[in-house]
Amino acid sequence: MPQTFYAVIPAGGSGTRLWPLSRPAAPKFLHDLTGSGRTLIQQTLDRLEPLVDGALVVTGEAHAAAVAGQIPSVAPQDILIEPSPRESMAAIGLAAAVLLHRHPEEDIVVGSFAADHVITGSQAFARAVRTGVDLARHDYIATIGIRPTEPATAFGYIRLGHAVTEVPGAFHALGFTEKPDVDTATEYLATGQYRWNAGMFLMRARTLMGHLDTHHPQLSEALRSLAEQWDTPHRQEALARLWPGLLRIAIDHAIAEPVAADGGVAVVPGEFDWDDVGDFSALARLLPPVDATQENGPRILGQRARATIRDSERALVAPHSGRRVVLLGVPDAVVVDTPDALLVTTTDQAQRVKDVATELEQHDTAEEDR
Amino acid sequence: MPQTFYAVIPAGGSGTRLWPLSRPAAPKFLHDLTGSGRTLIQQTLDRLEPLVDGALVVTGEAHAAAVAGQIPSVAPQDILIEPSPRESMAAIGLAAAVLLHRHPEEDIVVGSFAADHVITGSQAFARAVRTGVDLARHDYIATIGIRPTEPATAFGYIRLGHAVTEVPGAFHALGFTEKPDVDTATEYLATGQYRWNAGMFLMRARTLMGHLDTHHPQLSEALRSLAEQWDTPHRQEALARLWPGLLRIAIDHAIAEPVAADGGVAVVPGEFDWDDVGDFSALARLLPPVDATQENGPRILGQRARATIRDSERALVAPHSGRRVVLLGVPDAVVVDTPDALLVTTTDQAQRVKDVATELEQHDTAEEDR
Repeated sequence: MPQTFYAVIPAGGSGTRLWPLSRPAAPKFLHDLTGSGRTLIQQTLDRLEPLVDGALVVTGEAHAAAVAGQIPSVAPQDILIEPSPRESMAAIGLAAAVLLHRHPEEDIVVGSFAADHVITGSQAFARAVRTGVDLARHDYIATIGIRPTEPATAFGYIRLGHAVTEVPGAFHALGFTEKPDVDTATEYLATGQYRWNAGMFLMRARTLMGHLDTHHPQLSEALRSLAEQWDTPHRQEALARLWPGLLRIAIDHAIAEPVAADGGVAVVPGEFDWDDVGDFSALARLLPPVDATQENGPRILGQRARATIRDSERALVAPHSGRRVVLLGVPDAVVVDTPDALLVTTTDQAQRVKDVATELEQHDTAEEDR
Repeated sequence: MPQTFYAVIPAGGSGTRLWPLSRPAAPKFLHDLTGSGRTLIQQTLDRLEPLVDGALVVTGEAHAAAVAGQIPSVAPQDILIEPSPRESMAAIGLAAAVLLHRHPEEDIVVGSFAADHVITGSQAFARAVRTGVDLARHDYIATIGIRPTEPATAFGYIRLGHAVTEVPGAFHALGFTEKPDVDTATEYLATGQYRWNAGMFLMRARTLMGHLDTHHPQLSEALRSLAEQWDTPHRQEALARLWPGLLRIAIDHAIAEPVAADGGVAVVPGEFDWDDVGDFSALARLLPPVDATQENGPRILGQRARATIRDSERALVAPHSGRRVVLLGVPDAVVVDTPDALLVTTTDQAQRVKDVATELEQHDTAEEDR
């Protein structure tokens, strides 16, 4: 039985945390947020394609065309379109079930990797992924845990246990914690026993579906049924019948937590830089300063020539409208200039952008409905 | 001999202190900076027209068409076009000389009022102007001195002396001081004997030309010569010959200061609110808060519906591009959003805008020249 490894890339998100750079109509995975010339989903594929036998992208109807346009190396049938968001378990489970149905002769490992995370250090990433695949072949649910660099409160944490005997460099996962408060996060860091949960899970497709049979049999059955119909003329009919009722749950809660309690989850420490670019503060930290010799200097995402920045340490300016942007004496400012909307805030207010963007979105939708 | 009174309105300025709202191509007098629906030059005319027998506007070639379009009540021949800026003495002196030449049968008083100042209190303004005209009829150079409300360092000051016997409510001017430092300004305020110099001067046209004959005879001669040719086919020829050599000097230095030393300047205390809107900090103070019950609330100049402002006390937002503007948690911010340029700064940095705008202007001109 040939051993294969497929990447599963859930590409979703509301696009509100980086508004107005990202939008519900164009969430952040469709954007080049690092100034590399490649969007986040392109970078995700770039990292994974050398490591895998294939990749499936799971995305919404609204983004399917944009996704297909950005990653031409992924065949149309490998872009799975969800009628509505049902969180990560449904997306990853669907991909696993479809792969099992398409390739019954293969021993399939699937690895899930978000489309909108930024990773620096391709070699370390590749090493971690290979170790994860190795663990998956030993029937673990493997996850890559990122070494924390600060007591972040925006990420979940994984607690490391004793070493996995079968695979060098991996550890049993003792448990998962949701976003902790800063004191708890600081304690976690002090122990050295915690890693950030980056949502990267690797496992045999059969193992995954087996755990799903145990913990969420209805979801498992629906996903298997969808997979059987997927490549037939009955796909839409099956989606219409089954999709609305699918359990909305993250893979972390659905599988990783209960299986970890039974000792079935292993952690590969990821020794690469990782960020989920959760807000503009994260984006500002991620980008290099305009002047490499000024560590605290401002950051520009976009056309440098359009921005004039004075005395604004650590500020982030995104000139995305073609207009001239002048920022004068506002340290830690966030200025995001797009053709139809402008955001001015500071990095310490970045977490609030989501609420305002959501509110505006509802307001604008209400206006259109009138 | 009929007694007449004409307003002379110098309309110039580089437009850099309120960049990018105002521009060299459209300085601030062409803008509605108070949200009243009228531009500053229109408001200036609105205030003066009930008080005068006529008004002359002196402006540059670049702005003549815009000025004429904004104030249709001023006849084309009453918009005097300067080939290049030569400061206020040349502008006011030219207007006085033209009026004397056009109306030899009148006893003319001229009053100079900048086109880009904001005044609140039309009745108090009218009273002060009438007193100024009365003083002018007694051959004083009259000036309206604004009661200082703070130790401003951006304005000149006039020191009051004893009362003028001929006209109640007026005082001799003991002298003029250029922009003082804050300690000096604070001392001035403590004495109660100082007023802000708002550049409003009223005098008989003949008296003005007489003082000019004494103190700057070459300028006087050139202006009289220009006035003689103004309404003839030889105007351009005279301008080409005489204008480039005109002395660049403000009326304050050319006339007010030397005449004050001889006891010939009188001050009318102006009991109205006045501001020359010298920068965005001044503009922010001038505008009412969006919510009248929140004295420290943000200010919006432009379309309120386009701006969403949270937790940004005393901020000034000018949404002038039609785009949505979100300002989140930046007290004292200045956000000026125009179709081709964006400024983000704070009110305490407002004085620096001029330098950056001038630099950008030079840079852009250099780019165009390439």
